Amino acid sequence: MNGGELTCAGFRFAGACGGIKKKGGLDLGVIAADEAASCAAVFTQNRVKAAPVRVSQAALKAARGRIRGIVVNSGNANACTGPRGDADARRMARLAAAAIDGPAGSVLVASTGVIGEALPMDRVEAAIRSAGLSLYEEGFAAFAEAIMTTDRRPKIAHRTIRIGRRPVSLLGCTKGAGMIAPNMATTLTFIVTDAGIAPGDLDRAVRRAVEPTYNAIAVDGDTSTNDMLAALASGAGAPVAGATDLARFTEGLTALCDDLAHQLMADGEGVHHVVAIEVTGAASDAAARAVARRVATSPLVKTAIAGADPNWGRILCAVGNAGVAIRPDRIDLALDEITLVRGGVAAPDLDDKRASAVMHRPAYAIRIELHQGKARTRFLACDLSHDYVSINADYRT
Amino acid sequence: MNGGELTCAGFRFAGACGGIKKKGGLDLGVIAADEAASCAAVFTQNRVKAAPVRVSQAALKAARGRIRGIVVNSGNANACTGPRGDADARRMARLAAAAIDGPAGSVLVASTGVIGEALPMDRVEAAIRSAGLSLYEEGFAAFAEAIMTTDRRPKIAHRTIRIGRRPVSLLGCTKGAGMIAPNMATTLTFIVTDAGIAPGDLDRAVRRAVEPTYNAIAVDGDTSTNDMLAALASGAGAPVAGATDLARFTEGLTALCDDLAHQLMADGEGVHHVVAIEVTGAASDAAARAVARRVATSPLVKTAIAGADPNWGRILCAVGNAGVAIRPDRIDLALDEITLVRGGVAAPDLDDKRASAVMHRPAYAIRIELHQGKARTRFLACDLSHDYVSINADYRT
Repeated sequence: MNGGELTCAGFRFAGACGGIKKKGGLDLGVIAADEAASCAAVFTQNRVKAAPVRVSQAALKAARGRIRGIVVNSGNANACTGPRGDADARRMARLAAAAIDGPAGSVLVASTGVIGEALPMDRVEAAIRSAGLSLYEEGFAAFAEAIMTTDRRPKIAHRTIRIGRRPVSLLGCTKGAGMIAPNMATTLTFIVTDAGIAPGDLDRAVRRAVEPTYNAIAVDGDTSTNDMLAALASGAGAPVAGATDLARFTEGLTALCDDLAHQLMADGEGVHHVVAIEVTGAASDAAARAVARRVATSPLVKTAIAGADPNWGRILCAVGNAGVAIRPDRIDLALDEITLVRGGVAAPDLDDKRASAVMHRPAYAIRIELHQGKARTRFLACDLSHDYVSINADYRT
Repeated sequence: MNGGELTCAGFRFAGACGGIKKKGGLDLGVIAADEAASCAAVFTQNRVKAAPVRVSQAALKAARGRIRGIVVNSGNANACTGPRGDADARRMARLAAAAIDGPAGSVLVASTGVIGEALPMDRVEAAIRSAGLSLYEEGFAAFAEAIMTTDRRPKIAHRTIRIGRRPVSLLGCTKGAGMIAPNMATTLTFIVTDAGIAPGDLDRAVRRAVEPTYNAIAVDGDTSTNDMLAALASGAGAPVAGATDLARFTEGLTALCDDLAHQLMADGEGVHHVVAIEVTGAASDAAARAVARRVATSPLVKTAIAGADPNWGRILCAVGNAGVAIRPDRIDLALDEITLVRGGVAAPDLDDKRASAVMHRPAYAIRIELHQGKARTRFLACDLSHDYVSINADYRT
């Protein structure tokens, strides 16, 4: 990917060093739209929401889905900080609006990092001022780096799709260290596009795109207080008009989110295997999802993945714990091309060594056929490794 | 506890070495009642039920809660073994009934160990015969040892309570290595009493006793295919007649189960801290339980426990993920006597070092006050440690 691809007509980006992260480096990012852009966002389902989440939800609603920019800091989550946290988040949004010459209330705010400590607002203010003076069309890589916490590398994806024969750009970045890093490892995702799309349509596209991607990955099943995915559309490019255009746009957005979600999992600290849990033959979509999620989050399955141990009893056990009326004697299980279980019992030709060899691959699929219907789903899981415990047990203290 | 306490009028016990466990030792246990005893049992909620669970459920129903004995093997779970597994479990029950001179259909069967392998029925048969010849009133310790898998020690509890001025004995044992050991670490629990109690009343007592004890502990949240708790009452002692007697009996049974559940947690391999999650001020019992269970099973909380890290943001995050309409700004958090959070934000006098010192204790409480109502609950949790990963990732292969 060359620098030329990392642009999107109608947007400028900046990354600044504010000294908010104790280890230094870029820790404040700004996205600025030249004109008011359509915006849609999804936020954490956690009942404990950080101040920036509450402030951004209110701002997006008040602005009726038309905003001018986003300001993000890393190094401090501004979560569990009480009324002062809310005031700080609102002030960040005001300062950023001023820095990009936008009206008050036209900027969303996001934070990620340590929980329970007040933002160092003097540093944040200086960094926002600095970012406002260094906005560039080519600044996306700096922005993507500024939102990182324990991520090992920036995670960026880019797509060009065609809407009515005209090209439309989609450019996104994500952070989260696979949601397994310390401090609940907030997942933040920001996507810009030059498509001309109304806020309502953008909202529909975002909600459909996250379902099979960001909502189908799990490292440890915990949802951060700060999670947020926001998409901005400048309208500088082709218009998205009518159902066909919207379907095509949604498809491209989903592919972009899938790319970002895979990068998120693969960059998880302590993650050595990204495993697709593929459930087929379920009686309903809800049943398929419940089974896939339960297998993906079972500690006993995740440690078996870590140990490359084809211990299929643990997988069947997790399926049985999904709260779904499955028929154990119908279940087939496979690891990629190796069949482990047929009709609920060990496959007669099962070769543990060949099965274990599959599990040494960095990416593979656990395939679960329930033989009860036609619903299917896919969920991304990973191993529960010593590194996970080290990172999360030894952090902070 | 001396040997004399480990008896219960009306019962004899045996442990035998059948060579079912590859490492050798006692691996088959029998409980025999002199006369038909009242029996009540609870079984795994997993949809994938091992053959002995299905066979015992049917036998208990057919016998209308009056049985003569229980046979248990360790070393092989007889789970995911298809129709042959069911036939083997029924044959175990028949062989045991013959060995204790009981009628066909009067014996329950339980198994724990490796999943997906057929029982070595020649060895099982020889062991049942041997056990039938070595039934002793003092044999409970041998029985308790025979049901162990990766448990480090037998877990036995004993109580004498008074019903209408007469003593009633309660004697129980449990296995499970804290449910965190390999192969889904089946939890098996067997309790005998000399009380004279009808099967229906015994069933009510058992269901009430397990709720705040066995149903309020979690190591990794996985439920085995083989879990079972059974209680037998011989009637050789005092009768339990009327509501007052039943309440007293239930209280004693609950205390016994609490003792056994604590031993189960403390013996969990990889467990260094047994932590009581105490939720108070909840709007409802269901809300209290949902919050306690979520905190107890959160990997980020459990790794913080392992690292003795008073990272209270993770606890608040888990509370917020419980799916309960909590009010974040009302929550108080404490570790034993150390307050971490007041009204959803860090306590002004919070001292991380003192908080971490509490977390080095082998047992302590995480106290969560929601300030929304009067409901309360307690749940036992433990750490997610390197040992857990080693035991479960490195097992089998």
